[in-house]
Amino acid sequence: MAHLVAILTDFGDLDPYVGIMKGVIAGIAPNAATIDLTHNIAPGDIQAAAFALLQAVPYFPPGTVYLTVVDPGVGSRRRPIAAAAGPAFLVGPDNGVFTYVYEHFGLQAAVVLADPRYRLSPVSNTFHGRDIFAPAAAHLVRGVALEALGPEARDPVRLPLPRFSQTSANEIAGQVLHGDRFGNLASSIAWLDWRDETTLEITPWLAGRVAPRRFDARRARVTVAAGGLAQPTTFDGIHRTFSDVPAGQAAIIVGSERHLDIVVNRGSAVERLGAQSGDEVLLALPSDA
Amino acid sequence: MAHLVAILTDFGDLDPYVGIMKGVIAGIAPNAATIDLTHNIAPGDIQAAAFALLQAVPYFPPGTVYLTVVDPGVGSRRRPIAAAAGPAFLVGPDNGVFTYVYEHFGLQAAVVLADPRYRLSPVSNTFHGRDIFAPAAAHLVRGVALEALGPEARDPVRLPLPRFSQTSANEIAGQVLHGDRFGNLASSIAWLDWRDETTLEITPWLAGRVAPRRFDARRARVTVAAGGLAQPTTFDGIHRTFSDVPAGQAAIIVGSERHLDIVVNRGSAVERLGAQSGDEVLLALPSDA
Amino acid sequence: MAHLVAILTDFGDLDPYVGIMKGVIAGIAPNAATIDLTHNIAPGDIQAAAFALLQAVPYFPPGTVYLTVVDPGVGSRRRPIAAAAGPAFLVGPDNGVFTYVYEHFGLQAAVVLADPRYRLSPVSNTFHGRDIFAPAAAHLVRGVALEALGPEARDPVRLPLPRFSQTSANEIAGQVLHGDRFGNLASSIAWLDWRDETTLEITPWLAGRVAPRRFDARRARVTVAAGGLAQPTTFDGIHRTFSDVPAGQAAIIVGSERHLDIVVNRGSAVERLGAQSGDEVLLALPSDA
Repeated sequence: MAHLVAILTDFGDLDPYVGIMKGVIAGIAPNAATIDLTHNIAPGDIQAAAFALLQAVPYFPPGTVYLTVVDPGVGSRRRPIAAAAGPAFLVGPDNGVFTYVYEHFGLQAAVVLADPRYRLSPVSNTFHGRDIFAPAAAHLVRGVALEALGPEARDPVRLPLPRFSQTSANEIAGQVLHGDRFGNLASSIAWLDWRDETTLEITPWLAGRVAPRRFDARRARVTVAAGGLAQPTTFDGIHRTFSDVPAGQAAIIVGSERHLDIVVNRGSAVERLGAQSGDEVLLALPSDA
Repeated sequence: MAHLVAILTDFGDLDPYVGIMKGVIAGIAPNAATIDLTHNIAPGDIQAAAFALLQAVPYFPPGTVYLTVVDPGVGSRRRPIAAAAGPAFLVGPDNGVFTYVYEHFGLQAAVVLADPRYRLSPVSNTFHGRDIFAPAAAHLVRGVALEALGPEARDPVRLPLPRFSQTSANEIAGQVLHGDRFGNLASSIAWLDWRDETTLEITPWLAGRVAPRRFDARRARVTVAAGGLAQPTTFDGIHRTFSDVPAGQAAIIVGSERHLDIVVNRGSAVERLGAQSGDEVLLALPSDA
Repeated sequence: MAHLVAILTDFGDLDPYVGIMKGVIAGIAPNAATIDLTHNIAPGDIQAAAFALLQAVPYFPPGTVYLTVVDPGVGSRRRPIAAAAGPAFLVGPDNGVFTYVYEHFGLQAAVVLADPRYRLSPVSNTFHGRDIFAPAAAHLVRGVALEALGPEARDPVRLPLPRFSQTSANEIAGQVLHGDRFGNLASSIAWLDWRDETTLEITPWLAGRVAPRRFDARRARVTVAAGGLAQPTTFDGIHRTFSDVPAGQAAIIVGSERHLDIVVNRGSAVERLGAQSGDEVLLALPSDA
């Protein structure tokens, strides 16, 4: 049974809002344990939150409740929902933030958080995290069935999936997804796994239409059309680790999420390339792979 | 019985100080659970901390211990205290940080943290959070009675309350309290509750001397004399939600704490108005309400 | 038996990486409790992390596991290790980050984290915190013996110790260690304890070669050769507390870690002096002490 609540928001660390949600959870489900994913999603950045959830879910125990409050439409007609998708219970606004988890694990059920027994009273117009979402997460932990929280939510909102497709026999096109604190840029080209010291295997993730294939990583070429540079940047070969790359030099590696990442060893690829979410990334495979 | 310790400090996130306080608590009361309110109160900003506590206490289980270390006078003669006020046990410096909780819930008892059995030894001159306050909070969780921690603390320090008063039959004067991460400005004009789609009711909070009253929110006018602008800014009408306000436009809403807030939808009212804590906010009510 | 995992990283607060490590721990050891030390160690700053651990360990319950991921060499040949040192179980990269804990408490045992039963599979090249270190910490909490995690790690890496030595009968030379959020500068001159209102006692810490001695704090003189200033700055006397120092004035106090600290009351010594880690600090003792 669920007893863990993982919390993801764009509330930042300045205010007591996250703590207040935890207080609400503790009052309803004293045995719940909470884990912070991050509260520094850029305000309203639904796609970044969706990706953070996809990164996290495979590493948490089955039955974990993901309380997700990245909610630029709070107070509007967007629905508050809870959903079951694979090992995850999802609680938050119906604005697409759960897209990648639905896509990866399959969506089993979704409900609108309408039952006043499982909300605080009154419900404010501005802080549904406290008044609707935290109580719903806590009641799930207490053992309330998903279906008891409200009526079925038909057709939950889904974001467009990131670009990731085979553009020719030996070329795969993707995009920059986001940058992290270390300045590493994750791309949508995934999943990549090392089969031996020099061989990579690509298998499609989400809705990527790409043929699974093995290739020589040393002979692959990656081109990044970063918005911050006049010319695309080309990289020959995909490295195994940061430590293969001379300090200060940009390079391509397979990151911890099994995506193709652009990195600068002990530096920032975000700054070096001026790349942004959406910039094109092309992977040219060796023709005789 | 208490088992939760909510922690509020101005320690920031760079140093291990908060973690060390939790280590001290875990050593004394292994079953205690801790919840962070925030550690990013501006250094020494006692009023901001006092307001954060008032926001949080109503949402936590009764018996929660609030370990509060915003303590610019550490090492001076200010007293270390613990207090009982309504559902809350308060532990921290006697510098006024508990003012609003005393005022809102009533102060039942306060003691000076003088008993060496409930402190670490030695006590440093610079980190009472670790040496005095965390141990006191942990002993309260273990079941030690408040009165056992030390002698009565007479007349705990109280901050002046924020300005909030009726200046004429149809005008209420308040002030800016503080800005949050989203750039929303909370004012001292509270509490406001929606009675129907267009009707607001005001009831005084803390020591506000304001007559409770219902009025048409669409016909109210709010004037903010922000320090950053040459002219006061006037707003006609109070909106129900962020999403009623065009993106980028400043407006007045009722925030999640039931205060009158100045907001910019997907923008920052703090930056737009250059407003600061203390700036005047006037609410003109419709004359025939 | 251990049930606490204290976590120290340089991951920052922007990404879900720390939360993901906690998810891995919760899956392996559901009864583990985690405490964050800080995740804002400057990226790759092994010495700052080593010092934060030394600050923390004395205040945590014996048997706590310290999961430490400040790991600029991830993916290289640096060994992943676990160690027992005094009351602490240490888990992290073998890059010197545990030096001060080894030095202060003594190193009892160290192993290389080689047994695949106690790692995730597959192990990425870039996120050993999730794939190797968090699982090892969780298995220690579950009761797995240190020795079961892998073969002995001979000669774990140790950093050079900070300068701290007696340069003449009445002079002790040290260095700036680091600055904290409040702008206080900690020096390597420690440990200092007040014996009465005016008398300090110095006893060496780590490998400091300094004769223990009592002296009149009012008559001591401290000279700081800060890189940011053309001339060294001299301070007469060591103060007992912040509140003895006029607001805005720089002074010397004994900090909460019992080190000689340079502070500006309600200001920043880091900014005032432009001091950096490594800058020289001299303590001249009164000649007739």
